[in-house]
Amino acid sequence: MKNTLKLLGTIRRDAPLVHNITNFVVMQTTANILLALGASPVMAHAKEEVEEMASFASALVLNIGTLQPDWIEAMIMAARVANKRGIPVILDPVGSGATKLRTDSVKRILVESRVSVLRGNASEVLSLLSEDVRTKGVDSSMSISEEVIPDIKDFAKRMGLVVGISGMRDLITDGDTVYRCDNGHPLMTKVTGLGCGLSSVVGAFCGVAGGDNLGATAAAFGYYGLCGELAASDSPMPGSFAVHFIDRLASSGCEEIENGLNISRED
Amino acid sequence: MKNTLKLLGTIRRDAPLVHNITNFVVMQTTANILLALGASPVMAHAKEEVEEMASFASALVLNIGTLQPDWIEAMIMAARVANKRGIPVILDPVGSGATKLRTDSVKRILVESRVSVLRGNASEVLSLLSEDVRTKGVDSSMSISEEVIPDIKDFAKRMGLVVGISGMRDLITDGDTVYRCDNGHPLMTKVTGLGCGLSSVVGAFCGVAGGDNLGATAAAFGYYGLCGELAASDSPMPGSFAVHFIDRLASSGCEEIENGLNISRED
Amino acid sequence: MKNTLKLLGTIRRDAPLVHNITNFVVMQTTANILLALGASPVMAHAKEEVEEMASFASALVLNIGTLQPDWIEAMIMAARVANKRGIPVILDPVGSGATKLRTDSVKRILVESRVSVLRGNASEVLSLLSEDVRTKGVDSSMSISEEVIPDIKDFAKRMGLVVGISGMRDLITDGDTVYRCDNGHPLMTKVTGLGCGLSSVVGAFCGVAGGDNLGATAAAFGYYGLCGELAASDSPMPGSFAVHFIDRLASSGCEEIENGLNISRED
Repeated sequence: MKNTLKLLGTIRRDAPLVHNITNFVVMQTTANILLALGASPVMAHAKEEVEEMASFASALVLNIGTLQPDWIEAMIMAARVANKRGIPVILDPVGSGATKLRTDSVKRILVESRVSVLRGNASEVLSLLSEDVRTKGVDSSMSISEEVIPDIKDFAKRMGLVVGISGMRDLITDGDTVYRCDNGHPLMTKVTGLGCGLSSVVGAFCGVAGGDNLGATAAAFGYYGLCGELAASDSPMPGSFAVHFIDRLASSGCEEIENGLNISRED
Repeated sequence: MKNTLKLLGTIRRDAPLVHNITNFVVMQTTANILLALGASPVMAHAKEEVEEMASFASALVLNIGTLQPDWIEAMIMAARVANKRGIPVILDPVGSGATKLRTDSVKRILVESRVSVLRGNASEVLSLLSEDVRTKGVDSSMSISEEVIPDIKDFAKRMGLVVGISGMRDLITDGDTVYRCDNGHPLMTKVTGLGCGLSSVVGAFCGVAGGDNLGATAAAFGYYGLCGELAASDSPMPGSFAVHFIDRLASSGCEEIENGLNISRED
Repeated sequence: MKNTLKLLGTIRRDAPLVHNITNFVVMQTTANILLALGASPVMAHAKEEVEEMASFASALVLNIGTLQPDWIEAMIMAARVANKRGIPVILDPVGSGATKLRTDSVKRILVESRVSVLRGNASEVLSLLSEDVRTKGVDSSMSISEEVIPDIKDFAKRMGLVVGISGMRDLITDGDTVYRCDNGHPLMTKVTGLGCGLSSVVGAFCGVAGGDNLGATAAAFGYYGLCGELAASDSPMPGSFAVHFIDRLASSGCEEIENGLNISRED
């Protein structure tokens, strides 16, 4: 809780630049989410400029929705600059598992660059694991099944990254420590781009966390989900909810976090 | 009216996947409209994945706004998969008639694949008809003129598709039966993407209609226009109206439809 | 003030077509801003159609955010048609100075076509001036420093265009006359696309100004900033503010302009 507050305060003070190479559907929403949070978004995907843009960003966020093959090249170029500079790289595997292009692209990015945090839903993350894990990995609420958590931990450990899985109950792990987060609201799945927006918010939190990507990812999941709950209490309808969600990201702070943050650490 | 309620109920229960290859301006709005309706949107345009994506969708929506020539190839590839599977293909001829690229692209799609529903405004649809029909086809309110309805019916019949034309008074016909719909509100033309969004909503309705594309298109026009009227009664200003419109799409049902649906069938 | 009212009235009556070649993040917002203002937006970027589209527009707006090199070609093609027809060309140098691709692209457009109005923030505009002007050009509030105004005037004069610089205090000059505008609100920087939206609104105002691009740009800055102030008085949070801003663009008029417009002319 203290960590969440501290990182949020740093974001609002320093407005870290988050470089997003993301999909067409969510670019606007992502930018507005980062601005409301207090970060500075930039979107740039041309090979001719991604390395330069990544060279002065605090975090890089890669998102493979509405993918075109040439964008993957640009993502890897940017990720390598980010790796060299030691800034966090967040990967959102949108639709991995749905098409071969998406699944292959995620694997290629994971192999050709060093990803710090992989943030997706259960089926997207599971698409990267073996067949037998995949078949038993999603429960009835579309969340990650408890029984495959050891496989997820093993994957995180082996790949040297933090895995953050959204669902009714979020799972965040680096392979050793596990955080569970119960913040969030079903309405968040009724507005496009809120999952992708979380990946960029993870970028902002990791960008000011000085290397503690696990703690920063858990903090980001918690704060983001909490703002979703607060916005759902403002309106139960998706159009108004989306507006309130932006307002809550901008206005929530100490009091809301103290009363509502619901993250637990399981070692 | 019963048909509208039944199809809406099925959409909300089954959340049919609607695959959209659409323009950059409206991608986000389209996704939010489909989510609010209860459907599942996916956007994918790369040649490398459109066939796979179309292979498990319930409907395919093609929209030629912000067109690039290479997207047309992907649209036709996806449409052929959709045709083979027998799922409905909706075509929105955005800006047809304004530039040669747009008009030619619409014609190419119509020739190289089987379109189920063509959904546009009067001038877009008329751009596909002969010169003499075009000149007398739009009335003072930018709606379709009564005198060219036989030409529209003939076109629908000849092409083997449903034509849905938005305007003050909507026209939906398969060449035999004609539906007129008086739902809708002028504010809907003051928010970008609401026409395109209707095409995707037609996709969702047709996707659960088991082949009755004519009835499903009429139902989609009616429900969508009705939500526009209700949202306009919530706010007369375009920014707030757009938010209320999403809320109304998500919340309207039996009562609103019974009181407000305004579709008539003319045989 | 009379000029602002007159131009706004003309926009609302004639709905001038504004052709935008703009970035992916802001396309939707830009369209909604222009619609709320009373103009007709169109977005088209394919080389195959930009000349045709520009041939019946009232203004052309070029915006280099989320740039791809091939878009620059299309921008120049469209600008040349606009130049031939004598309609205003507005250039928004988004991110100029941040990467070589952006700075070079802006310079290329400025050399290969005739730009009527360059609309950006202080650092973007200064990226086009000499090193010594750049280093002293931005003050602590990220606005243009008073001491470089002669350099800006000289640049505007030499290039034969109007420069419009957004900031705490806006500067609009053609090299001879200087307008300062104190309308606007800091919340406008917390919603993505509002700077880009202003460039398109400048396009709409210039499109109906019959050649007085200086006066039209000043009027656009004033009205736009005023709507921002009014929206900020409706809500201090960015999500709701963005909705109110669209509403205010659509609804403000004589009374608001008389009471709130804050433009001064310095000869």
